[in-house]
Amino acid sequence: MGSEELRAVAQMAIVVKDIEKARSNWAELLGVEVPPISETETRESTHMIFRGKPSNGRAKLCFFKLSNLVLELIQPVGGPSTWQNFLEESGEGIHHLAFRVENLDETLGKLREMGIGMEQRGEFKGGGYVYTDSRSSLGAIMEILYHKE
Amino acid sequence: MGSEELRAVAQMAIVVKDIEKARSNWAELLGVEVPPISETETRESTHMIFRGKPSNGRAKLCFFKLSNLVLELIQPVGGPSTWQNFLEESGEGIHHLAFRVENLDETLGKLREMGIGMEQRGEFKGGGYVYTDSRSSLGAIMEILYHKE
Repeated sequence: MGSEELRAVAQMAIVVKDIEKARSNWAELLGVEVPPISETETRESTHMIFRGKPSNGRAKLCFFKLSNLVLELIQPVGGPSTWQNFLEESGEGIHHLAFRVENLDETLGKLREMGIGMEQRGEFKGGGYVYTDSRSSLGAIMEILYHKE
Repeated sequence: MGSEELRAVAQMAIVVKDIEKARSNWAELLGVEVPPISETETRESTHMIFRGKPSNGRAKLCFFKLSNLVLELIQPVGGPSTWQNFLEESGEGIHHLAFRVENLDETLGKLREMGIGMEQRGEFKGGGYVYTDSRSSLGAIMEILYHKE
């Protein structure tokens, strides 16, 4: 039994060294306005955990809405994180594909059964995310996005 | 002016070391049948060019149809290729995002204007593909898929 929720890729995200350069190139290529850059919040509000430990890792983000998914650019800025780690180990590239789920516990349960755990997790206004440590089993990191009240 | 054609991500592809293991894990996670594995044709029919030179590089492929795009798994098998190169330099991971275009020349012209060239190209029955050398400008390799008569 697979998860009925993992049907559509909601986002894909590229880790870059220089988000201003990358967003300008993507905007030119797609013929769209240059989107604003935001920054992840501090650990006090994200409760970010990277490889089992609280971390101050943060990132600059920007988003391009394509017709069937959202393309995200991520530039790590200080502190240990999956983004920083990916950049150091693999260089600039596509960091993850994201699925949006209604039932986080069910999805995490299914992943656990398959031996897939959490690489990083955190919260943002209205929701949260889990990155999976699935590079050796699925070939890629997945992000599970969920809403919370 | 961006390309009006680059609006939807048609495919995303993961380069893996062991396609049988990866497809079995993905099928379990998604709760779908294990898809068949195919292999790219020989250079005589693909006319594959990698970094300006004809190459015998080949790959095993399989495809999962998600609701909004196709997830592709790629295992390089011998001969120089962008897939083999990616695996050696970056490890298993998401190799590219693909756009389907009607007018290949227009898209390649737009990319050229931006200083983006071809990393690899080849043909298959009914169409062809171009991988761009855009890792430093866009943070990721793009695939341009096109039909031909």
